[in-house]
Amino acid sequence: MNRTLSLIAALLLLPLLARGKEGVRVSWIQAERAITPTTPLPATLRTDTLLQAWRGERLTAAAMIQGPADEPLRVRLSAKQGAARAWENAAQFMGFVLTDRFNTCGYHPEGLPPYRVADRIGGEEELTLGAQQTHPLWCTLEVPRTCRPGRYQWQLEVVGSHTGRVLARAAMHVQVGSHTLPQPSDYAFHLDFWQQPYSVARYYGVPRWSQRHFDLLKPYLRLLARAGQKVASAILFYEPWGEQSHDKFDAMIQTTRQPDGTWTYDYSVFDHWVELLDSCGIDGQINCFSMVPWDMTFRYRDAFSGQDIDLKCTTGSDTYRQLWTPFLRAFAQHLKDKGWWDKTCIAMDERGLPAMLDAYSVAQEAVPGIKMALAGNRHPELVDKLQDYCIAYGHAFGPEELQARRARGQVSTFYTCCTEQWPNIFTNSQPYEATFLPLYAVANGFDGYLHWSWLNWQDDPLHDSRFRMFGSGDTFCVYPGPCSSVRFEGIIQGVQLTEKVRLLRQEFEASGRTDALQRLDEAMRPFSEGHIQHDAVPAALRQLKALLNS
Amino acid sequence: MNRTLSLIAALLLLPLLARGKEGVRVSWIQAERAITPTTPLPATLRTDTLLQAWRGERLTAAAMIQGPADEPLRVRLSAKQGAARAWENAAQFMGFVLTDRFNTCGYHPEGLPPYRVADRIGGEEELTLGAQQTHPLWCTLEVPRTCRPGRYQWQLEVVGSHTGRVLARAAMHVQVGSHTLPQPSDYAFHLDFWQQPYSVARYYGVPRWSQRHFDLLKPYLRLLARAGQKVASAILFYEPWGEQSHDKFDAMIQTTRQPDGTWTYDYSVFDHWVELLDSCGIDGQINCFSMVPWDMTFRYRDAFSGQDIDLKCTTGSDTYRQLWTPFLRAFAQHLKDKGWWDKTCIAMDERGLPAMLDAYSVAQEAVPGIKMALAGNRHPELVDKLQDYCIAYGHAFGPEELQARRARGQVSTFYTCCTEQWPNIFTNSQPYEATFLPLYAVANGFDGYLHWSWLNWQDDPLHDSRFRMFGSGDTFCVYPGPCSSVRFEGIIQGVQLTEKVRLLRQEFEASGRTDALQRLDEAMRPFSEGHIQHDAVPAALRQLKALLNS
Repeated sequence: MNRTLSLIAALLLLPLLARGKEGVRVSWIQAERAITPTTPLPATLRTDTLLQAWRGERLTAAAMIQGPADEPLRVRLSAKQGAARAWENAAQFMGFVLTDRFNTCGYHPEGLPPYRVADRIGGEEELTLGAQQTHPLWCTLEVPRTCRPGRYQWQLEVVGSHTGRVLARAAMHVQVGSHTLPQPSDYAFHLDFWQQPYSVARYYGVPRWSQRHFDLLKPYLRLLARAGQKVASAILFYEPWGEQSHDKFDAMIQTTRQPDGTWTYDYSVFDHWVELLDSCGIDGQINCFSMVPWDMTFRYRDAFSGQDIDLKCTTGSDTYRQLWTPFLRAFAQHLKDKGWWDKTCIAMDERGLPAMLDAYSVAQEAVPGIKMALAGNRHPELVDKLQDYCIAYGHAFGPEELQARRARGQVSTFYTCCTEQWPNIFTNSQPYEATFLPLYAVANGFDGYLHWSWLNWQDDPLHDSRFRMFGSGDTFCVYPGPCSSVRFEGIIQGVQLTEKVRLLRQEFEASGRTDALQRLDEAMRPFSEGHIQHDAVPAALRQLKALLNS
Repeated sequence: MNRTLSLIAALLLLPLLARGKEGVRVSWIQAERAITPTTPLPATLRTDTLLQAWRGERLTAAAMIQGPADEPLRVRLSAKQGAARAWENAAQFMGFVLTDRFNTCGYHPEGLPPYRVADRIGGEEELTLGAQQTHPLWCTLEVPRTCRPGRYQWQLEVVGSHTGRVLARAAMHVQVGSHTLPQPSDYAFHLDFWQQPYSVARYYGVPRWSQRHFDLLKPYLRLLARAGQKVASAILFYEPWGEQSHDKFDAMIQTTRQPDGTWTYDYSVFDHWVELLDSCGIDGQINCFSMVPWDMTFRYRDAFSGQDIDLKCTTGSDTYRQLWTPFLRAFAQHLKDKGWWDKTCIAMDERGLPAMLDAYSVAQEAVPGIKMALAGNRHPELVDKLQDYCIAYGHAFGPEELQARRARGQVSTFYTCCTEQWPNIFTNSQPYEATFLPLYAVANGFDGYLHWSWLNWQDDPLHDSRFRMFGSGDTFCVYPGPCSSVRFEGIIQGVQLTEKVRLLRQEFEASGRTDALQRLDEAMRPFSEGHIQHDAVPAALRQLKALLNS
């Protein structure tokens, strides 16, 4: 080859080499703030990260890749040591979903410009990445409760799906300490996402409560259990919430009025549902909705006519008492037969005091001692009566009330819903807000956190987080797949932090380490009412994490 | 005044004089054929007419007036002799209503050109009449059953409502013979227009079954009674007919299922309704709809839920039996208590044989001997079972069947509905068809005539006879007011003719006047199956009338 030809060849190869050199790039990133399709790769790439972990902890890490890639990409985590290979792990592309700035109650307004945010985790196996295009990744690692403390090394690998070549890498070092988190079902934190199993049947086109429906629900419920969920949501009568339920809540108990006016009850769906949750690790409590549904109708089957009757009555009526007295007596007996009596509450959502007192009186008269729950306003008249009392963010029980309730074995939690613009788990919230919520609970004397929705999917849940009502993303935080979300993972991280705080506090108290206790209290102070500064929360979270892992 | 001035004055007065001379003109007319706004005044005016009458007869006569009139007009009948002044009489403007050529079953088609026909009788007190404009009038005279035979003279007067001047006159001579018609309630002819009292409540904006509703119904029912109506239509359960009822038929008996599964019945509306009909002279029979409604639902009140249940069941089901057995037993007892047992039928409309046999079996098992009625196809299996059996125009019972039914005291009638394009009482039918119908019944061995609708008003019954279904005018033949109609008066005339035929036949048979009997039979032959020529019917009617009055 003469010099001229060599020169021509070199000129032709030059762009290819440059492109190869520029290829796929990867960097670890913080995921405290929302990621959109225009979030850039960090100016300084971080191809190495160190995660501190307790045994039993679910670790997460976010990364960003940038193209161009000559072929579709896949991602994976590889363990450097054989010991770590059995750890449950995943590296996934994050998915962008539609949201907008609507972050309050009521009907979704027209004309708000939508935008895309990286909230869904997983859902696509492969990704095509153009030049300068970025895309976020999410890594999950379940550190076994039995693993040996020490340093474990993992590698995030971006792989060409045609060639199988690793096109980019980033190292992840996991330093596992000697502390161990409990099984999620043993977390002290009282987490309660109300379940919406009906959307799954509709989304997958299977009959409600068919075996296929139950099978499809399992991975969703396992993910919920992983977060430390304590409570099964059960439905006594259609339909507790009315228009806000995109999929209507059928009763899990078939109540039938026989031709002679006596009542019979078929508990088979209720039993199957509770047992399914139990088998997935959600076995702490059963909350049964509702003695005071939003439109005060109770659907039962009338055996003579073969029709469903929507019985409309007020809590003070004779009809109400005639419906509930036999229902609760038979139900109590069934719960006792199943061994579920002690952990079951009749639950209500945001109902007023007179109706609550009526329902309480009817229930106690029918079955003395039956437990009841409410998510709603704090009424002094109810503080001693409700086994499970959940009040809105920013409201408070008195310290004596909390103490007395705890002494009675009663659970006191708080909730956010469409009302709270901050903190919340809308898709237009910042990811750190989810992590903040469990810490807020513990810092303010609550036993846990409740959210009214979890899987209340609309028609295109995989790509759109908006609904006809409520702040965008309010109605679900787990996507079809199941795919977890930045928001749901944020809750898990927050709950794990509360468990660490609790265990360390116990440890420090037992060993009399007041200095360490004091440092813990200081680190928790930014989450306590009167001390919260919204913008300072991310830093406070980082500080707390560092302390808990040190 | 000089000649020039006189000439000018004469020229100025000329049109006024001509106009005065041309003024309002009146002529008696035949009303066998439909009158429209363009029907002209007869070329030769008839200002004198002679009506032959029986005592107790309702006489009618039509006239036509032509303008111009300088003032609004009124019309009246004046008796020349004091003896006639007490006769019930009326001269009324006829009213034009919208109709079109739709004259069959099913939904009313789009795009049919409407036209106006003079069907309504009355409804406007005054009329403004332009030059050359014509308008039909209708006169009604009730010849008392007690009046002395002889000639009575009446005068139809067209009066200027401002001046009170009689602007035109026509004489009416009434020759009353010695024969007497019975009271309409004693007519042998079995006339059965099903009643729709609900439309009256809606039209006048009064609550159903309020005292005001009952009061408003009275003149309508008296008009119906005048025709010889024999049957009260009562409604047992909502809603026998479904979409064809513009005003839904509420039950007249409130059936309530008590919390213990027993039944109670409130007969107060039923009783009030039957007693109202009774007081208006309709007391021959009570037909109660229906054990086999069109969509097989039975609405009852469920006392526990306080809701109305639309019980859906088949005639062969246990549920059906469980509903009807206690219902019929209690109803039978109530009818016996009221003295109505013998004249009450459980009635059905156009239902198939299997359902009819089921219903018959359930009813007879519940209350042996309870009477039943059907308007529908002729089924040999039902001929001996049904107290009141009505079959469609053109169909026939066998002569032995009719004889056997009559011997058992059973009633056999025929009906027209949307199916019959001729003869019928659509507003696009010819008026003589209505008169033909009762004669057809008698000529073919039937006891009477049935029509499914009478007052099934749509939203603008005063001006429009069309409905979303069925041939135009099929759903009602009495207008708000009440205003009678050419069609309803035609029925009355036909029924009166059948009574005359019956009475004369009795008379001729008693006196052995076979020649007269033969003339009667000959005059009736054109109305008998196999002899009917549509176009010859008007002449046959005239011939029959002449014979009956001679």
